[in-house]
Amino acid sequence: MSAALPVAILGAGRIGQVHARTIAHLIPEARVVGVADPRLGAAQALAAELGIPTVSDDPAQLIADPQVQAVLVCSSTDTHADLVIQAARAGKHIFCEKPLDLDLGRIDTVLAEVERAGVQLMLGFNRRFDPDFARVRALVASGAVGRPEMLRITSRDPAPPPAEYAAVSGGMFLDMTIHDFDMARFVMGQEVVELHAMAAVLVDPAIGAAGDVDSAVISLRFADGALGVIENSRRAVYGYDQRVEVLGSAGRVGNRNIAADTVQLADAYGQHDPLPLDFFMQRYAAAYAAEIQAFVAAVRGAGPLSVGGHDGRMAVVLGLAAKRSVALGRPVRIQEVAG
Amino acid sequence: MSAALPVAILGAGRIGQVHARTIAHLIPEARVVGVADPRLGAAQALAAELGIPTVSDDPAQLIADPQVQAVLVCSSTDTHADLVIQAARAGKHIFCEKPLDLDLGRIDTVLAEVERAGVQLMLGFNRRFDPDFARVRALVASGAVGRPEMLRITSRDPAPPPAEYAAVSGGMFLDMTIHDFDMARFVMGQEVVELHAMAAVLVDPAIGAAGDVDSAVISLRFADGALGVIENSRRAVYGYDQRVEVLGSAGRVGNRNIAADTVQLADAYGQHDPLPLDFFMQRYAAAYAAEIQAFVAAVRGAGPLSVGGHDGRMAVVLGLAAKRSVALGRPVRIQEVAG
Amino acid sequence: MSAALPVAILGAGRIGQVHARTIAHLIPEARVVGVADPRLGAAQALAAELGIPTVSDDPAQLIADPQVQAVLVCSSTDTHADLVIQAARAGKHIFCEKPLDLDLGRIDTVLAEVERAGVQLMLGFNRRFDPDFARVRALVASGAVGRPEMLRITSRDPAPPPAEYAAVSGGMFLDMTIHDFDMARFVMGQEVVELHAMAAVLVDPAIGAAGDVDSAVISLRFADGALGVIENSRRAVYGYDQRVEVLGSAGRVGNRNIAADTVQLADAYGQHDPLPLDFFMQRYAAAYAAEIQAFVAAVRGAGPLSVGGHDGRMAVVLGLAAKRSVALGRPVRIQEVAG
Amino acid sequence: MSAALPVAILGAGRIGQVHARTIAHLIPEARVVGVADPRLGAAQALAAELGIPTVSDDPAQLIADPQVQAVLVCSSTDTHADLVIQAARAGKHIFCEKPLDLDLGRIDTVLAEVERAGVQLMLGFNRRFDPDFARVRALVASGAVGRPEMLRITSRDPAPPPAEYAAVSGGMFLDMTIHDFDMARFVMGQEVVELHAMAAVLVDPAIGAAGDVDSAVISLRFADGALGVIENSRRAVYGYDQRVEVLGSAGRVGNRNIAADTVQLADAYGQHDPLPLDFFMQRYAAAYAAEIQAFVAAVRGAGPLSVGGHDGRMAVVLGLAAKRSVALGRPVRIQEVAG
Repeated sequence: MSAALPVAILGAGRIGQVHARTIAHLIPEARVVGVADPRLGAAQALAAELGIPTVSDDPAQLIADPQVQAVLVCSSTDTHADLVIQAARAGKHIFCEKPLDLDLGRIDTVLAEVERAGVQLMLGFNRRFDPDFARVRALVASGAVGRPEMLRITSRDPAPPPAEYAAVSGGMFLDMTIHDFDMARFVMGQEVVELHAMAAVLVDPAIGAAGDVDSAVISLRFADGALGVIENSRRAVYGYDQRVEVLGSAGRVGNRNIAADTVQLADAYGQHDPLPLDFFMQRYAAAYAAEIQAFVAAVRGAGPLSVGGHDGRMAVVLGLAAKRSVALGRPVRIQEVAG
Repeated sequence: MSAALPVAILGAGRIGQVHARTIAHLIPEARVVGVADPRLGAAQALAAELGIPTVSDDPAQLIADPQVQAVLVCSSTDTHADLVIQAARAGKHIFCEKPLDLDLGRIDTVLAEVERAGVQLMLGFNRRFDPDFARVRALVASGAVGRPEMLRITSRDPAPPPAEYAAVSGGMFLDMTIHDFDMARFVMGQEVVELHAMAAVLVDPAIGAAGDVDSAVISLRFADGALGVIENSRRAVYGYDQRVEVLGSAGRVGNRNIAADTVQLADAYGQHDPLPLDFFMQRYAAAYAAEIQAFVAAVRGAGPLSVGGHDGRMAVVLGLAAKRSVALGRPVRIQEVAG
Repeated sequence: MSAALPVAILGAGRIGQVHARTIAHLIPEARVVGVADPRLGAAQALAAELGIPTVSDDPAQLIADPQVQAVLVCSSTDTHADLVIQAARAGKHIFCEKPLDLDLGRIDTVLAEVERAGVQLMLGFNRRFDPDFARVRALVASGAVGRPEMLRITSRDPAPPPAEYAAVSGGMFLDMTIHDFDMARFVMGQEVVELHAMAAVLVDPAIGAAGDVDSAVISLRFADGALGVIENSRRAVYGYDQRVEVLGSAGRVGNRNIAADTVQLADAYGQHDPLPLDFFMQRYAAAYAAEIQAFVAAVRGAGPLSVGGHDGRMAVVLGLAAKRSVALGRPVRIQEVAG
Repeated sequence: MSAALPVAILGAGRIGQVHARTIAHLIPEARVVGVADPRLGAAQALAAELGIPTVSDDPAQLIADPQVQAVLVCSSTDTHADLVIQAARAGKHIFCEKPLDLDLGRIDTVLAEVERAGVQLMLGFNRRFDPDFARVRALVASGAVGRPEMLRITSRDPAPPPAEYAAVSGGMFLDMTIHDFDMARFVMGQEVVELHAMAAVLVDPAIGAAGDVDSAVISLRFADGALGVIENSRRAVYGYDQRVEVLGSAGRVGNRNIAADTVQLADAYGQHDPLPLDFFMQRYAAAYAAEIQAFVAAVRGAGPLSVGGHDGRMAVVLGLAAKRSVALGRPVRIQEVAG
């Protein structure tokens, strides 16, 4: 076996920490050789915890470090495009948290740079690596349900984000639904060609005041004619509700939510089961580890690259199409947006 | 207790037989005194089975019979309006299978006649009387899920009807989805104000050739701003899929499909559970009985009338709105259709 | 089709009423021509409700009635043996509620009379006709789980009977567990050869004061070497708990409890499902109907007789063996009791 | 925070590796400073993987190492007693895999040495730390089911061990059921006072030829009078079946089996769910980590010691009582065995 892949973590926040720990504890094929964060203390703490040799408050320093072969872009969304371009120019392979950017033109620039550099770029759509959703996709791909005809995604956050987050995040469609758009393309194995979004502010008026929505029903039409629907809400007091179902000519496949345990209590009032996990990092813990393993394998030539630049672009395209549908009050052909 | 309510069955087909047997065996508060069907043999067979004294090939004869106090209109859809008008003019209370008619103007004429006559009219939206859906509604009405924000109805027939049926039935939205539209109004306890239908022919090309669709995603906006979605397919090889779910500010409520038994087999290949019931008369057996009990109770003054003429009209309005949405490729305000 | 089988109901209590209504409404192949009960009013009320022509306070009168071809013995346990003998001598076919008697010698006398008379005798072990348990048995018999190795029956009443009932009923093993013993023989398709009962008074001290127990674990060994266990309790505050599971060399099969509906509510505290049905007549409604249908079919030669005299005897033998095991504090070979 | 607890791993087999990796990756409060195994290569491989500084083929060397403060005894069963005694005399805290020994006299000697040395001893009954079983125990202890009256443990291995293992392991009761005995004491929070075991050879005749059994039903009576039953089988082709249920005066609590995913496929033949996990190391992965965390916390004074020497002794006592019950064909009072 060749030596472990040396990677740098750009951004020592919540998700950067998750990826760094995953590599340190679970992926002997890679090692974290540097961590950078403008908040130097965060980078230092992570480095101390995991024995990471290089720490910096400037990601450019690690990108320039010749020993670094790959970077994980875990910084705030508005820095993604710049860091990816810098890393690509430096010849580093790149794992980038979603979204690449909120602007399509900018995304195209980034993708062009990545292609020119010939490096690998993987987007952090972690849900593809969730064991449940991966199994749904595998069953659909295997023909277990025949020809897929109808997709349903129920995706509800446990609780709404602060309203001020609505503005910086690009809004619900680009921040939250973007995962569901990627899931739709992944599970069905084809592109969406048309969508209609019906949205509302039902959870928090402040989100509406900030110009965003918190609830939506999004109808999808796929390239081969199949239909789909995504239901979103920013609030599910019973936990993080993440369900996917596909109806096909030969059956149906779908997952259930995952709870912390399986213990049922039956008393004089009912049969009571535990709630679904309500924190995305807990619900998708296995998926976060699996996506980094896949990235490392791809960079080392030990596996295919999945979730590439096109996937990152299309999820943003669909988010923009949904915004447009709400703004215009009509269905939107994806071509109108995708350019 | 007063004497049993004398009723006549107009139409001795499948559903007429169900209602006649329900009254004979389960509802001592009513008795079937006559049955009419143009196919006289069908009426005679039913009369023989249940000891019904009067048989005719002409419903008008039973409507005119002074001992008959109420009629159950179980004939083909195109006769509903005429028979309801005749019965109303004769002062009979009326239970009518859905739909009243496929034409709104005609429905309005019927409703005006019913109102003028002062008789009771109940529409056969049996699903409101299903124990599961009644429980979902009761929990929503009780505030168990807080303010309702999102409704989902998954409604899939086990197998598509013959394509020729598409034409006479008014199409999927007026034949099949009409039940889901009524369920939407029932469960949410309010009106739909806007809808968007995205539809396709995925199950049977002959249905498309006949000018109908067999699959659809219908987004709903309710009067108070809540959202909803109805997913329809004419085919679910695993059985009759009938699920309703409501998300509210304080929780979620929904039903599961019902199978013939609860027996699970686990072998080396998986854990196998029985399929959902696949015949609507079996799935909704309890609902058919309960709706007739409710009608008899209402006529006898022992209970409120539910599912009245307005409900019958609005379900057709929503079906027409869905057709219009597909035809125009845009959302439709219900007011555009409802007049 | 020949004329409907004329039957008499002996005993117009709760279970006699159930059987009479079942025949009147659901079994056209039979008709109730008479009902007898020492409490004449009860018999008269049932006759009035269903239009039964003959009413008596003396079952002997109906047994002697030449038009009666079969009787349903629904009277108190202490009268079963006498009535069965009388009916057998009169050449009537007999359906008898369990148990035949609490005394083995007396049972043997009854069975000899029945055999001499050449009439059919069916015992009311209704659970064999429950759709769930019938399905479990069918899957076991089909080889779906391979060779059966371990049976588990969890059988818990919702609430204990009055303590005074303990004495007259013969105690828990002969009153309640007797059903589970029959189920064990039915599901496994073979005899029990040894059992050990560990019992306790945990629910109601008054039951203990009356000389009975209210909780037990009964280990079973079957003729082919397979093992089994019956868990009993006289109290399950969450409903009537009736589960059977069989482990075999190739898998496992078992049922779930049945609730009034399938509606789940998820709120901030948990996911709540409805309780199992808590009244045996509701839980086993379908089974009561199916067993009478089977009896009528057998008498009319349209089906095999199931649950015959031997089955009735063996269930009592096992109940007596369990009592003996508790009394002696050791396992009991069934041969010790069966004679 | 004080420095990390230095521990040595005695035995580099399957379970030793699990514990070593757990400490290296998940427990910063401890560090593995040495590993010993007579098969030196195994110890060296583990040391290389995790960067463990000291490696030996002799556990005594690590026990004598002054820097080692605690040892994990992960060697073969026949060495447990000696190593625990050596470690106790050397003043090391001890985590020991079950069982301490198969001989009660020897166990008592070990426990006396441990007490004399004043070190902490924890037994590796990992299931107590499983999230499901811990939750069952917590609900029982909280009074959620009222007074516990009936315990059921269904415990089935996916596949039988080689028959030759039967002899060295002490037999099914001391090798497999021992976990269930500990679970029974843990969940009910009290001692067993009597048991009866009915056993058979149903899975593999070679196990019988080796003098062991592979299937059993074990009835339990607890100190306060409550009852229980353990069902064991060495084979469940559908996976590792690990269920616990407690009935109490106020309800019932129990867990379900855990599968690799939650994805259900419904096709024309049934609704199919994934099988339970079939490898104990996967099923109990979280439990293995949690028990070592608890041990480290207890040694560091940051938590109570659980699963001590008495627990280790009582599980063996119950296993011996079960063997005695089978040999004598009668119930056994635990006092007969416990001395």
